[in-house]
Amino acid sequence: MDTTIQILGERRVRSPLHRLGPLGVHFRTQQNRILYDHSIEGFREAQAQGGDPISFELAGPREWLFFEPSRVRAGIVTCGGLCPGLNDIIRGLVMELSHRYGVSTIYGFRYGYEGLIPRLGHIPLTLRPDQVTAIHTVGGTILGTSRGPQECGVMVDTLEEMDLDLLFVIGGDGSLRGAAELTREIARRGLSKSVIGIPKTIDNDIQFLDKSFGFETAFAEAVKAITSAHIEAVGSPNGVGLVKLMGRDSGFIACFAALAGNVVNYVLIPEVPFQLDGPRGLLESLRYRLAKQRHAVIVVAEGAGQDLIPAQSGGGTDASGNRRFGDIGLFLKQRITDFCAERRLEINLKYIDPSYLIRSVPASPQDNVYCSHLAQHAVHAAMAGKTGMLVGRWHGTFVHLPLELVSNGRRKVQPQGDLWHAVLAATGQPASFC
Amino acid sequence: MDTTIQILGERRVRSPLHRLGPLGVHFRTQQNRILYDHSIEGFREAQAQGGDPISFELAGPREWLFFEPSRVRAGIVTCGGLCPGLNDIIRGLVMELSHRYGVSTIYGFRYGYEGLIPRLGHIPLTLRPDQVTAIHTVGGTILGTSRGPQECGVMVDTLEEMDLDLLFVIGGDGSLRGAAELTREIARRGLSKSVIGIPKTIDNDIQFLDKSFGFETAFAEAVKAITSAHIEAVGSPNGVGLVKLMGRDSGFIACFAALAGNVVNYVLIPEVPFQLDGPRGLLESLRYRLAKQRHAVIVVAEGAGQDLIPAQSGGGTDASGNRRFGDIGLFLKQRITDFCAERRLEINLKYIDPSYLIRSVPASPQDNVYCSHLAQHAVHAAMAGKTGMLVGRWHGTFVHLPLELVSNGRRKVQPQGDLWHAVLAATGQPASFC
Amino acid sequence: MDTTIQILGERRVRSPLHRLGPLGVHFRTQQNRILYDHSIEGFREAQAQGGDPISFELAGPREWLFFEPSRVRAGIVTCGGLCPGLNDIIRGLVMELSHRYGVSTIYGFRYGYEGLIPRLGHIPLTLRPDQVTAIHTVGGTILGTSRGPQECGVMVDTLEEMDLDLLFVIGGDGSLRGAAELTREIARRGLSKSVIGIPKTIDNDIQFLDKSFGFETAFAEAVKAITSAHIEAVGSPNGVGLVKLMGRDSGFIACFAALAGNVVNYVLIPEVPFQLDGPRGLLESLRYRLAKQRHAVIVVAEGAGQDLIPAQSGGGTDASGNRRFGDIGLFLKQRITDFCAERRLEINLKYIDPSYLIRSVPASPQDNVYCSHLAQHAVHAAMAGKTGMLVGRWHGTFVHLPLELVSNGRRKVQPQGDLWHAVLAATGQPASFC
Amino acid sequence: MDTTIQILGERRVRSPLHRLGPLGVHFRTQQNRILYDHSIEGFREAQAQGGDPISFELAGPREWLFFEPSRVRAGIVTCGGLCPGLNDIIRGLVMELSHRYGVSTIYGFRYGYEGLIPRLGHIPLTLRPDQVTAIHTVGGTILGTSRGPQECGVMVDTLEEMDLDLLFVIGGDGSLRGAAELTREIARRGLSKSVIGIPKTIDNDIQFLDKSFGFETAFAEAVKAITSAHIEAVGSPNGVGLVKLMGRDSGFIACFAALAGNVVNYVLIPEVPFQLDGPRGLLESLRYRLAKQRHAVIVVAEGAGQDLIPAQSGGGTDASGNRRFGDIGLFLKQRITDFCAERRLEINLKYIDPSYLIRSVPASPQDNVYCSHLAQHAVHAAMAGKTGMLVGRWHGTFVHLPLELVSNGRRKVQPQGDLWHAVLAATGQPASFC
Repeated sequence: MDTTIQILGERRVRSPLHRLGPLGVHFRTQQNRILYDHSIEGFREAQAQGGDPISFELAGPREWLFFEPSRVRAGIVTCGGLCPGLNDIIRGLVMELSHRYGVSTIYGFRYGYEGLIPRLGHIPLTLRPDQVTAIHTVGGTILGTSRGPQECGVMVDTLEEMDLDLLFVIGGDGSLRGAAELTREIARRGLSKSVIGIPKTIDNDIQFLDKSFGFETAFAEAVKAITSAHIEAVGSPNGVGLVKLMGRDSGFIACFAALAGNVVNYVLIPEVPFQLDGPRGLLESLRYRLAKQRHAVIVVAEGAGQDLIPAQSGGGTDASGNRRFGDIGLFLKQRITDFCAERRLEINLKYIDPSYLIRSVPASPQDNVYCSHLAQHAVHAAMAGKTGMLVGRWHGTFVHLPLELVSNGRRKVQPQGDLWHAVLAATGQPASFC
Repeated sequence: MDTTIQILGERRVRSPLHRLGPLGVHFRTQQNRILYDHSIEGFREAQAQGGDPISFELAGPREWLFFEPSRVRAGIVTCGGLCPGLNDIIRGLVMELSHRYGVSTIYGFRYGYEGLIPRLGHIPLTLRPDQVTAIHTVGGTILGTSRGPQECGVMVDTLEEMDLDLLFVIGGDGSLRGAAELTREIARRGLSKSVIGIPKTIDNDIQFLDKSFGFETAFAEAVKAITSAHIEAVGSPNGVGLVKLMGRDSGFIACFAALAGNVVNYVLIPEVPFQLDGPRGLLESLRYRLAKQRHAVIVVAEGAGQDLIPAQSGGGTDASGNRRFGDIGLFLKQRITDFCAERRLEINLKYIDPSYLIRSVPASPQDNVYCSHLAQHAVHAAMAGKTGMLVGRWHGTFVHLPLELVSNGRRKVQPQGDLWHAVLAATGQPASFC
Repeated sequence: MDTTIQILGERRVRSPLHRLGPLGVHFRTQQNRILYDHSIEGFREAQAQGGDPISFELAGPREWLFFEPSRVRAGIVTCGGLCPGLNDIIRGLVMELSHRYGVSTIYGFRYGYEGLIPRLGHIPLTLRPDQVTAIHTVGGTILGTSRGPQECGVMVDTLEEMDLDLLFVIGGDGSLRGAAELTREIARRGLSKSVIGIPKTIDNDIQFLDKSFGFETAFAEAVKAITSAHIEAVGSPNGVGLVKLMGRDSGFIACFAALAGNVVNYVLIPEVPFQLDGPRGLLESLRYRLAKQRHAVIVVAEGAGQDLIPAQSGGGTDASGNRRFGDIGLFLKQRITDFCAERRLEINLKYIDPSYLIRSVPASPQDNVYCSHLAQHAVHAAMAGKTGMLVGRWHGTFVHLPLELVSNGRRKVQPQGDLWHAVLAATGQPASFC
Repeated sequence: MDTTIQILGERRVRSPLHRLGPLGVHFRTQQNRILYDHSIEGFREAQAQGGDPISFELAGPREWLFFEPSRVRAGIVTCGGLCPGLNDIIRGLVMELSHRYGVSTIYGFRYGYEGLIPRLGHIPLTLRPDQVTAIHTVGGTILGTSRGPQECGVMVDTLEEMDLDLLFVIGGDGSLRGAAELTREIARRGLSKSVIGIPKTIDNDIQFLDKSFGFETAFAEAVKAITSAHIEAVGSPNGVGLVKLMGRDSGFIACFAALAGNVVNYVLIPEVPFQLDGPRGLLESLRYRLAKQRHAVIVVAEGAGQDLIPAQSGGGTDASGNRRFGDIGLFLKQRITDFCAERRLEINLKYIDPSYLIRSVPASPQDNVYCSHLAQHAVHAAMAGKTGMLVGRWHGTFVHLPLELVSNGRRKVQPQGDLWHAVLAATGQPASFC
């Protein structure tokens, strides 16, 4: 695993942060690194092998910059679906660029990568501190967003025409792959432009990251939907509350929301296959529970049980290149309804799909702070001439990671791990529906 | 309009409230009434006609009771869909009965009128103050609820067998008609049992009532969904946020939520017909708006535009006897999508149906207080031997109304009135889509 | 009681609202009135006396205006302490003036009446719809505010120099008396300028008004402080939570917050005197309660028990002319602490004064809507040439009231009435501490 | 630094978790450890020195237990000030003990260590899952709490008399020192009782812990007070909002709340000394700011600037043994008021002390989950016979730490680090007031 961060060069401009008064600034260098594996086993293995183990470069201010701050021109683009914290990141980037480094020219591209394609006619916004000072109190992104890639060459043409030095890309793994492609095209043309990614995934499923921004806000909001489902379920004879949550490849939101809400009886996630039918299937378990408890709450991640859904209902990919899923929520709703109807069991099923309500809320205070840090570190990295990288947090420490690493696969809920076991304990659901 | 309240008789038991200390209690009698029509025109007309104008009996404590408090046995039942404040009413009834009148036997029937039908096997709960003291912090109803009528005779049998003196029915107009039927059957059998209704309609559409409990909580919650729809709409090129809200016959929730949220561009309610097609139809207006503003937010009440939906998609009635509606939300979503697709206008429509999330929240502090008052007045009325009536608020004053009055038709948003004009002003939408 | 509204004259400009489409507008005239007293007793008395009873002019759009909308120049000023909804009113005034009447020149004076005194150097803001569109999501007032009167003559000079036709004054009774003085000075100079008041009192204590804007938001926020006090009180042996709430002359906030919160054991308000000492005083009652229940929550309105506080600690008046109160919260804290110390009763008293936290929150959705209505009616009245009046709601209907009426005394909690009895029931406190 | 965890012995009872179905459980042993220092520098140093570097034992379920679950009797005690999440921890302990290990006897001691002293007469509660299932929705602690130590011998007597095997102590460093003392006394008596600490510090200042439970909830709540202070400050000419927050030895809450709130101009923390007077002191800076910006918001941690306060106003220690501080909030309020009065600068200072409001709220969803994990790991450790330890999270991983380690000094905000620099950037305040 190569964790080296590209750098455009070292022009030796002293950082304006060095004037930060008597207490001084703790500058970092690329020699400041943390271990990828902090277990004692990992230590012994590395010791046995000799040489340095895999490590990540620390984020943080650099004393010597590549870019002359007063001349820097920067651009920001937000891509993919909404996620709490986008405006925080935009705000943080503008504040850090302006107030700490004195950058005066900052553009915000509209509607994702579309905003870099001139013929689509989206005029970029000019961003100043006074315009963004309160945007973190509002959800969504003031820049707008869109899904899907655009022509790399045209986008680099735009960067050249606008004479931008820095591009900050806030997006999911598709968008970050696009950022990597931009980095390569910029290098191919021999340009000195820094491309810095800030990974966005409401599902919290990016490898090598403790957590993604907006995740905590999102699952906290999901708890409200779960609470509603529970209130509805206990309010009717044989009430069933069914909540579909985000989580295409990993069930973190479903698990955390279920743990926090503490009223869920079944959690279904992509990482743990399940059967509907048969004596140990979900449907029989549900029937048994209704007979005993008169109500049930089910939380299903959108990527769960895709093997159960007939082929025709999903298929293909969306503009972001994500596989289009069958709708497990509606499918479950139908199967539960049919199953109970066949057995003349009258139930009251309430189906809730709160995804838009969750992803559009403003970031929580925790995410406010987390996003500020991400933005500040992204600016530090860019000013130092780093490129083709993203900022993230690993084992509690902010680090630089090569853009390519995010394509290494996704982080998943481990079926043998503490998180899933906490879910099994909280729900009381069987360890397996097979 | 007959506004006389039935009374079981006057047994002349002194109310325990008369011992309320040096400041005393302001007892009311049935001579304390307020005018139905408080306009000066109404006054002159009444003056001209001679005789008393229509008036409503004031709610409030009575000095002389029909029932001997220490021997009273009471029952409570909640019917129909969830609505914020149900638990507040239950709590308020139990507290007032126990603490103010010393009633020690209170039953809570489970799952609406089903709970009064012994063969369905729902055992009533015994309710004591310490059990209900914190239930107002939770949404829904601790008793559960169900839709639809049950056999009147069997229910009165149950009341007799359980030797109940008072029955409090919290429900919508179907349930209150059921309560009226119970009152008649009780009278037919020559029994002395009081039946008091507390009208529940999240749509705020009961005649002769300023507002129904839970309505303010509900539209406040609806504002959140509207805000999300707006954030989604401005977040994409040609973003359209479409929110379906409650409102079968009247659009109060849609109007109030749109006014409070202040980001809605179109409000569609049952009281104001609209066209989709044609040069002045909604679809063309939407297209024009998107061309100019790049986004739009539409709020539609569930009962709006029912004339536009093909017959097969709705029809029939549900268990409560409500006409089953076609789903105007999904219908609009489809029509907008098709309309834009035909014109090769790429839009990003996000459809939000937050009804379960709205109706299951706990009551707001305002509704906490309002529900306490309703419950206290219901208890005062019952102890005084009133029956076949409901408690409500008219022109800011709590009054008694005969149960029959609620069937006199529903309260509607007036298309020439201030509320609808405030909506037109806030949205900027055309006064008509015809 | 004279309820006649002054009018500058009738210039017969047709309202632009008459173009509001096929459904039309329900215009009002000064003949549309509602009765001050809607009781049946009041009706009979009025009938007996002959002549019209006291009535209030209905608010609402007028078909014929005094001012030519396109030439109108308007000013807005907010006075006194913060109150939820101020920004809603400002927003509503600007929106209604601009969008409904086409007024293009609107000034916002800074920091209350100070903003009308040029030598204080506060430059007025120019207000446009796009600037105020989202201010209702933020607490406080974008104009700033201050206490106390300013020279009437200088202020009218300013209105003349700025050539303003309309002045909207949002403030408490001191500020509204100032508005009445402005009206008289304008009349004395023979000018045609309309002065319209929008009454602000977080205490909800203005006569002839159902409720004041911001009150519901305020007591809802107060519930949070009460909940904290309760959590603290039950968390320690002999825990006492003491919360001081607003309420100089009337205890509405204390009563409503106590009713909504449902965890308060003692409510102390200005309307109901109490003793601390003696066998039936508050302190003995508290000691008894602690012995039995181990905790207690006390809510005290700031104006309560002023007769108990030694003279030196209060006295004089503040800039608004309000009598300066002794701090009953700190006084009670001290007395309780001393009382228990003397009896070697170890208690854990937590004192909470949440006033700034309460009055600075944004308005709730209910108050959002209520404030819009107030603002719209204020604009309708001003455009029609009404002056020296305020808009309010009486028995659920928006009306015009002469500015002088607000000085007729304050609305109070009635010690024999339903509200106070509901409080006694909810707290279980003795009806009297004497 | 000795990181070895004491163990009562190894009786080899197989954990009931081994029956957790086909997916299995990932059991841990004391060989599973993570490095204390995960920097590459630390790695090289350790490599150079030879031998194992400092590491912490991983938390998690053990396959072999010391205690026979079905016979275990457990106790829980909460000590010190309130902190969000206490009820979550209690709930989590009861659930894990009951549902996962089948423990049926669980006592909750009342009011901190007082509850272990029989002569104080606090009867312990018996805790069952159905009683604690919803307590996480309420702030505070259902057990109550108190400050200060109690006689160690008497407490161990109580544990013996009640025949308890496990004691879970949730408390701050004073209470954990008490737990260490209990462990030693238990060992001295040759008893087999496990004492497990769960560190509580709302200030987030415990060494060797990523974060303490409740901290995120607390600073999120503090943001509300800061927002109010800002609204008040901008609402008056020369408005100054002054907020005192928790933080005796470290300013984490002040820093995080200021970063999240984004409206603070000055943050004062214990770690960064400051001067009030002189040309570069805080007061002159404030005067300059008011002259330019007309308002200012100041956040001060309670332990800041203690060197400035005259000796008589603080001094001594409280029942927990914490040094009693002078009230920096009231002191600053007075100094600012005097300073401005001397210069005839009229200001409007609003002082807010929201501590009780902050610490009494229910835990946020994030803290709900975090507390569940802490509780589960505490139970795993206790059942395995570990004692004299606490559970915490280090670099994102839950670990066991010896109780003694928490006395090694407190975690502080580093004046050269990223957090403080982010605060300087967000506030724009000078790096130093000296």
